[in-house]
Amino acid sequence: MFITFEGIDGAGKSTVIRSIADWLRESGRDVLVTREPGGSTFGPKVREILLEGEAITPKAEVFLFLADRTQHVDGTIKPFIESGGVVLCDRYADSTLVYQGYGRGLDVEMLRQLNGIATGNLQPTVKILLDLDPDVAVTRSTKGDRMDRESLEFFTRIRNGFLKEHDLDPERWVKVDANQAPDLVLNSVKETLSSLLF
Amino acid sequence: MFITFEGIDGAGKSTVIRSIADWLRESGRDVLVTREPGGSTFGPKVREILLEGEAITPKAEVFLFLADRTQHVDGTIKPFIESGGVVLCDRYADSTLVYQGYGRGLDVEMLRQLNGIATGNLQPTVKILLDLDPDVAVTRSTKGDRMDRESLEFFTRIRNGFLKEHDLDPERWVKVDANQAPDLVLNSVKETLSSLLF
Repeated sequence: MFITFEGIDGAGKSTVIRSIADWLRESGRDVLVTREPGGSTFGPKVREILLEGEAITPKAEVFLFLADRTQHVDGTIKPFIESGGVVLCDRYADSTLVYQGYGRGLDVEMLRQLNGIATGNLQPTVKILLDLDPDVAVTRSTKGDRMDRESLEFFTRIRNGFLKEHDLDPERWVKVDANQAPDLVLNSVKETLSSLLF
Repeated sequence: MFITFEGIDGAGKSTVIRSIADWLRESGRDVLVTREPGGSTFGPKVREILLEGEAITPKAEVFLFLADRTQHVDGTIKPFIESGGVVLCDRYADSTLVYQGYGRGLDVEMLRQLNGIATGNLQPTVKILLDLDPDVAVTRSTKGDRMDRESLEFFTRIRNGFLKEHDLDPERWVKVDANQAPDLVLNSVKETLSSLLF
């Protein structure tokens, strides 16, 4: 089982992931919580470059994400799945499609192809889209790094990008309304996963 | 003018580049000496990952090279060429083709395509191949980093890869016998560049 959590910043991914991890562990599952960028052995260095690099080009950003992703897949995600565990990943290939493609204007099909090369076409079992109103996201945003200084207009493009990707593959994507109260969001995610896992 | 210097480790690229830079500056040219990996603004961090990362996969290596390369091209190489200068670059796209493709077994045509995406198809005006006997290269090798611990067999694959790339595009590549004495190597390179530059 390989479950990814996607959505705009502020959608509550990390809180949901923590609760889902606890819930799965209580049911006896072996769970790995991980994230991108930064999931590979050299991930912290890549993350530093990405968050501090003021003048980095969108294409350079993509290749750094892909370096981290391919190492993360081969060194961490695949071995854990093969040992029978459940991987919960905060962002994965779709974040690159949406942020660098729909968000920054790089060619989406080129990015899809690059993701395929980087991941060896490893697809998540299910992709949870925490769909949040961009106005709410901007209000919730407090971290102060580069990603969070983006405008409302950018957040809106990102949200629409995720919705478009959802509509292209509604079998694999599950959309959850992240404007709801946190416990309702969590219940929706649990319901989705229950039907897959139990 | 954009001139790249390629060849196996120990072929004498950096010595030749320094001398060529001096020679071009004496003739009044504006010269930028640069290198890959490590040419971009975040290059030193990428170089650290590449040289220290014991367990890094060949594909992750490629994406790190490409991140550095695309930023290097857009942020450094292209602006310098456009301002009328001569760029001398120690390794470029062909090193990825040869080391990760012919050397580590990744698909060469896939790498060619990735290089095209990363560089926006920016091709060097001329590519100088410093062609050295792999036995000599292993003897000269003293740096002690990961690249230099590779076997003679690996060096041979690399050399043959460069020769194959040379044969695929003999108009752009110039092969120089790097087994000669250093001043003879330098003279050969100067002769080649004279016909292009003066």
